[in-house]
Order: sequence, then C-alpha cells, then structure tokens
Amino acid sequence: MKHILLLGAGRSSVYLIDYLISQAPLQDWHLTIADLDTQPLQSRFAGSPQLTLVNFNIHNPENLKNWVPAADLVISMLPAAFHLAVAKACLEFKKHFLTASYITPEIQNLHGEAQQNKLLFLMETGLDPGIDHLSAMETISRIQAPGGELLAFKSYTGGLVAPESDNNPWHYKISWNPRNVVLAGKGTATFLQNNKPKYIPYPQLFRRTEIITVPGLGPLEGYANRDSLLYRKAYNLDTIPTLLRGTLRWPGFCSAWHQLVTLGLTDDHYTVPNSDNITYAQWLEYYLPETAGADSILAKRLADFLKIQEDSPELEAIRYLGLLGDRIIGLKEASPAQILEQCLVQKLKLQPTDRDLVVMQHEFQYRLAGIKKRLKSSLVLEGKDATYTAMAKTVGMPLAFAAELILQEKITLTGVHLPIYPELYQPILARLKSIGIGFTEQEEIF
Amino acid sequence: MKHILLLGAGRSSVYLIDYLISQAPLQDWHLTIADLDTQPLQSRFAGSPQLTLVNFNIHNPENLKNWVPAADLVISMLPAAFHLAVAKACLEFKKHFLTASYITPEIQNLHGEAQQNKLLFLMETGLDPGIDHLSAMETISRIQAPGGELLAFKSYTGGLVAPESDNNPWHYKISWNPRNVVLAGKGTATFLQNNKPKYIPYPQLFRRTEIITVPGLGPLEGYANRDSLLYRKAYNLDTIPTLLRGTLRWPGFCSAWHQLVTLGLTDDHYTVPNSDNITYAQWLEYYLPETAGADSILAKRLADFLKIQEDSPELEAIRYLGLLGDRIIGLKEASPAQILEQCLVQKLKLQPTDRDLVVMQHEFQYRLAGIKKRLKSSLVLEGKDATYTAMAKTVGMPLAFAAELILQEKITLTGVHLPIYPELYQPILARLKSIGIGFTEQEEIF
Repeated sequence: MKHILLLGAGRSSVYLIDYLISQAPLQDWHLTIADLDTQPLQSRFAGSPQLTLVNFNIHNPENLKNWVPAADLVISMLPAAFHLAVAKACLEFKKHFLTASYITPEIQNLHGEAQQNKLLFLMETGLDPGIDHLSAMETISRIQAPGGELLAFKSYTGGLVAPESDNNPWHYKISWNPRNVVLAGKGTATFLQNNKPKYIPYPQLFRRTEIITVPGLGPLEGYANRDSLLYRKAYNLDTIPTLLRGTLRWPGFCSAWHQLVTLGLTDDHYTVPNSDNITYAQWLEYYLPETAGADSILAKRLADFLKIQEDSPELEAIRYLGLLGDRIIGLKEASPAQILEQCLVQKLKLQPTDRDLVVMQHEFQYRLAGIKKRLKSSLVLEGKDATYTAMAKTVGMPLAFAAELILQEKITLTGVHLPIYPELYQPILARLKSIGIGFTEQEEIF
Repeated sequence: MKHILLLGAGRSSVYLIDYLISQAPLQDWHLTIADLDTQPLQSRFAGSPQLTLVNFNIHNPENLKNWVPAADLVISMLPAAFHLAVAKACLEFKKHFLTASYITPEIQNLHGEAQQNKLLFLMETGLDPGIDHLSAMETISRIQAPGGELLAFKSYTGGLVAPESDNNPWHYKISWNPRNVVLAGKGTATFLQNNKPKYIPYPQLFRRTEIITVPGLGPLEGYANRDSLLYRKAYNLDTIPTLLRGTLRWPGFCSAWHQLVTLGLTDDHYTVPNSDNITYAQWLEYYLPETAGADSILAKRLADFLKIQEDSPELEAIRYLGLLGDRIIGLKEASPAQILEQCLVQKLKLQPTDRDLVVMQHEFQYRLAGIKKRLKSSLVLEGKDATYTAMAKTVGMPLAFAAELILQEKITLTGVHLPIYPELYQPILARLKSIGIGFTEQEEIF
C-alpha cells in the first residue's frame, strides 16, 4: 500500500481529492488529508476506509513531523510561502514532493540533495503554471522534431467567469486565491519581443494589454505575467526572438483595475489607520488630493482625479465594489490590499450555480521548410458550479495524474523539476484529454 | 584629550572635517578619519599633529574594532546601511554615536542599552533630517509657550542648484548622494491633511506637487517625502490636523522625473541584460511597446508613449541625460536605477565653480488668543563652489556643533534620539546662525 499525504484542502483541491479517494481502493493507496479544518471533508467522505483526516496547522512546521514520515508522496496545496518548509521535511524523511506552485530559488537549491536521495520534487504542475508547461513542451517538440524553427511563443491563461454567469461590471468572479488576484502583476513584467527584452512596470501593466481572440469566445485582453525570460532556459528556447507569458481577462477588467493600481489600493506594505472603523468612502478619500472642489461628491472628484468620466465603465466598476459607499470596512490593521481583497471576496464571489471558465491559448510562430506558420492551440473549459470549478479541475487533475505516475513508479526523474519532460507531459496530457481537458489547434501560413 | 573617530570622508564631510581640525588644538581633541581612500586628505592636511588618517573598509565591520575603542565619540558619514554595525560597535565599546541619517527601527531598538550605558546615539543631525528638526522644534516651542495651538505644519527642503549655475533642462545638479536622488520617493508618501491621512503611491508622487514660494527665490515645486505621520509623535503634535514634510525642486524637474518613473527607469530590483554593451537608446527601447510605427524615430515614439509633445521640456530633459543617444552604457549587470545614476552623475555634475543652493521652508499655522496666524520660516543658503557646497555646510555643521557639545559634556541626554530637545537645538541653532545658517520669518494673520 502507498501512502499519500495531501496538505491543504482548499477550493482548488476538490477534483484532486475526489480522484485520489476514488482511486485509493483500486490502486491500493491510503490518503491522509491534513488541513486546518477537516470538518467539511468528514461529512463528505464519512466511512472511506482508506482516508485519514487530520487537523493540521502549518504555522507550526514541527507538525509536519507527525505526518510526513508515514507518506510515500506529499502533495502540498498550501499557500506557496509554506512550500519550503514542506520540501525540507520531504528531504529529511525522504519523500517525493508535488505542488502546483512556482519554483522559488530556495526550493531550486534543494535540487542536488533531492537527486542524491532519489527523490522527485515536481513543482508547477497545476494549471498556470502546469498545463501551460505540459502543452507548450508537447507542441514545441512536435514543431522541432521535423526541423521547425520557433520564431515566437506567446502563452496566455485566465481563470475567468463563464459568459452566462457574468453579471458584474468587472466581468470577473473569484475562482482562485483572492489575495493573488489583488497582488497579481506586482513588480516588473518582462518578456522578449523581436530579440529585445521588454519591461513593463506594475503601474503601466494593466494598460499595456493586447487583444487575444479565442475561437468561440470572442476577444479577450491579455497582460504580461511576471518574468517570461525565465522560460527561454526552461523550455530550451535560447534563441527564440519573441517569448511572452500573459494573463487573460474579459475586456473591461484591466482598464478598471488600472484605476485601482493608480490610486494605490493594491499596496500591501502598510496598514490603513482605523481600518476597522472607517467606511470605504472615507478610505478612498485618503488617496485623493484635497481640492478646491472638496464639497463636490466623491464620485465626481474621483473621476476628475483619474481623468475618467463619471459614467465610465471604470467608475461603475469601482462603485460596484462598494468603494464609494458608507459600509464600515471592519478589518483591523488591514493593508490596502487586504481591504481590496475583502471587497472582491464579497462582491465578486462565485454564486453556488455560477460557472467559471478557464482559458489558455498558446500562439507558436515557426518556420519549417521555408514556410512560416502560425499555430494557435487553445483550451477552453467551463466549470459545473461554484464547487466543481474549471479552476479546481485544471489545477487538481494534473497533480492527480502526476501523483499517480509517481506512485506507480513510472517516473525515473529525480531532483527539483518542472513538468517539461516527455515522460511526464505525454501521459498527463493524454489523461487530461480523456477527462475533457484538451486543446484545439488552428494553423495558418503567414 | 578627547578622541573623535570620523567614519567616511565623502563630499558632505568637508565643512565638518575643516571645523574639527581647526578646533582640535583649541579644544584638545584628536581626530581620526577612517575612509576607503584617505589620499586626498593626506595632501590637504599634511602635518596636522592632532589628525590620524586610516584606510578603512566598512564592508568588513570587524575593522571597527581597530578604531572605535580609542574614541570618545564616533561620527558616521557612511552610507546609512552601515550605521547599525557602527552603533553596535559603539555599544560594545561604550562610545557616543552621531550621524545625519534616519533612525531605523533596528537602531531605535538599541535605545534601552544605550541609556543603561549612559551613551547618546544622536541621529538625524544633518540638514534634512537635522536642521529641520532643530528649527521646527524651536519654533513650535515658541508658538506653544504662550498658548498657541498648532493647526498645520508643513516643512519642505531641497538641495538644489543656484540660479546662476543652472544651465540644464532639469534645473538640477547633484550636490549629495546621487543614488538617493534616483531612489527618492520610493514606497508610498504619507501625510496628514485636515485630520485625514493621505497616501500618494510612488508612480503618482512627482505629479502631485505643490507650489512653494520662498522670498527672493520665486516659485518652487514641492512633493511629499516619506512618512510625515511619524513626526506627530516625534514633535509631540498628536492632535495637529495637517502635517506634511516634503522635498523642493525647481519647476520642471518633477514633471520630467515623473516620465522616468512612468517608464520604470528608477527600478532597482533587476539587472538589465547586456547593460555593459548596449547604448542608452537601445536600453530605452526595452521600455517602449513595439508599435506599427516602429520605424519612426525613438524620440517620436517615446513622446507618443508618454503622451507628451516631442518638443516638450520633459522630452528635452530626457534627451539631455543622453537616454536617446548612441553612447554605450558600459556598466556591468546594472539595475535601471544604477544606469540612471550614472547619467545623473555625468550630466548633472556640479562643475568646479558651480554653486549649489539649500532651501528649507517651514509653514506653521496656529491660533493664539482667537487669532489665526501663518508663520513662514525660510532658510536659503548658496554654496561657494563644487567643494564648499551649501549641502556640505548644512549637513556637516550641525554634526560639528553637536559633536562639540557632546565632547564638552554639555548634553545630559542618553539613549537613541533626534535633536528635538532645547539643550540641543538652542546652542546648535545659535552657532549655525553665527556662521550664516539662519532662518528669516514672515508672519501674517489669515
């Protein structure tokens, strides 16, 4: 019998947990789920003999010692900040480690030790990062095998709301970690265009968008995501002239979000005085200059300051979040980002029957036998409802299938890795396709 | 005989060193100056019997043990990042410590230990911070003594170029640490206006300026500087409705600098690829979107991107720095901020006969016996040349006079402090006035 330890059972874990539990009797697995609160799981899975639920608080990493030693594989769905502690425990007790989070330099540093111990620490195996790596590498190898030369690779992903559930001026609902939505894009985005590196500072990011057309969906907007230059090395594309990874939103989101960034409301570096006792409107005043027209209504002064119209979609979106309203914020010693996160969670919540939407599109440009071709590869997946989301499926199922491969000892790889190798992407993509997570391709000569 | 150890002999130290050396025989002092390179000092002060020059590298803090034990007082003109190491050495060897740099939380934490050892760690005793504290506290006490109630306090300081030496479109020359000029304003500026906290995020800072009129100088522009709210406590102004500290520039600087911030050229968090081999114009391209008009000249595309005119003063200022030019940057693994710093040092250098200008203006609004008054207190000082700058005089002489008071054992204060106490500000302000560093006042009823 193989033992799996799953740390964290948040909203992105539902498909992963269902799959592991359904496979446990077939594959002779035992699953231990460790979470702050396992009560909801207890009622759902009462009587599953191959499941153990334990209450667990990662804020005391010593707790890992109670559960890691009995496992063969540790899957972490905890917030990314905790992964280093988990990875170190996996080294100490010689366990494989699997997550959907970005490799950090600290975890990369464990590569040698993991290899020496014949352990696989497989990172970035969710949706984005995750399915993007799997599908990009598969297509790149297909282009390169007959001698194709890659000229450009652009990859965009979005966790969105399905059109039929879109009823707010942001055209967005929260299907993943709301804190990450607020902090998305912090720092400087970097990509490669026509052999030149390009830099977009955060305050400009949400107005430097590109229109992305996905078959059947109409136009979306994409903005550059983090450091795309890293993927030259990871994808073995050292000489590619254009390389960009981006994030997708429905049109309208980015220009409204740009206003929040301009105001400074996504800042996470200080706490707002009296954030428990003031209203959202009083808070917003902190970011506006005192002007001669200080008597005029807040919406008018806000619009003037941002140089937008009072009846613009951007101002409607800000109003929708309640930022012009008289409700008390009620959060103690909160940063602007934390206040904004509360607004998003309250106003942009997926309602029980709402459907989310995951969209990924890769664009490859390449030259083969003197002909230049553009290949667009698109994934579009709608969720069922607010629990069985497309986000949970596309994050969880790559992890589930990777876990299965590891437990079946079909992977020979050791060390710290992304899922960029055929022994991973071939079987995982095939299984994803069998459960409806597949790409459609369009190709044209240009 | 009292021993003074001066760490760092950069451009802001010239007046301080001259004064300490001139007073050494009169006051029975011995001065040890420790710097990376003491060669220039050796030729200037050859044969001064009460002076020792030592080559010293603070990057190895162990070196402090060679020189701190013999001192009675340690004055540090090193970059601020090194002050914690110096302060700890002062604690270990029980020495007084004096600097012109901001108190950090880490140094504040040494307060109790410094007190127990009857040591004074006097911070922020230069110009800004320094003379601002001395003069503000003196005036505040003068207003409060007869029962005046402070309604507003705004304080602006600038290290500028004198009008007769101003011959560039920035209307600015470097009279202090150029790295600090590039990084000025990073983070979020905070102040208090009509009992409301106000926040200005960095990308907005240089376009949220106020016009400040100083007698005899005409209009200047001021922008908010760091966290003004800290000074409620430091100045004992817990209930003041309006409190702002700011930085002064000649008109034109801020709107041009705002363009550099918008482009992202003040970023210090990543290194620019090939920064040793590319030209400034090639670097600038990294920050511009690729557009249909990519053939058109750089200046035109830059102006379009920034939404300014090609013949605007802002674009002229950018051009003046050489950012549109074909010179090779020639800096290895440099951040954008480091590249920009090199531009400033090369293009905005004080020439040997140039004069700098220090301007400080406090505005106090207060109510006394039912009458509301506005008091403006202004300091204007021109330098002699590029060595004997107003900056070096206004940074160095408060330190010199504070050192003198400490060595004469006239200060009873112990612990970590700002110079906000009468026993410090009264004698230091009097001595500053005697050497031409004095304030003029204007008062009006409003």
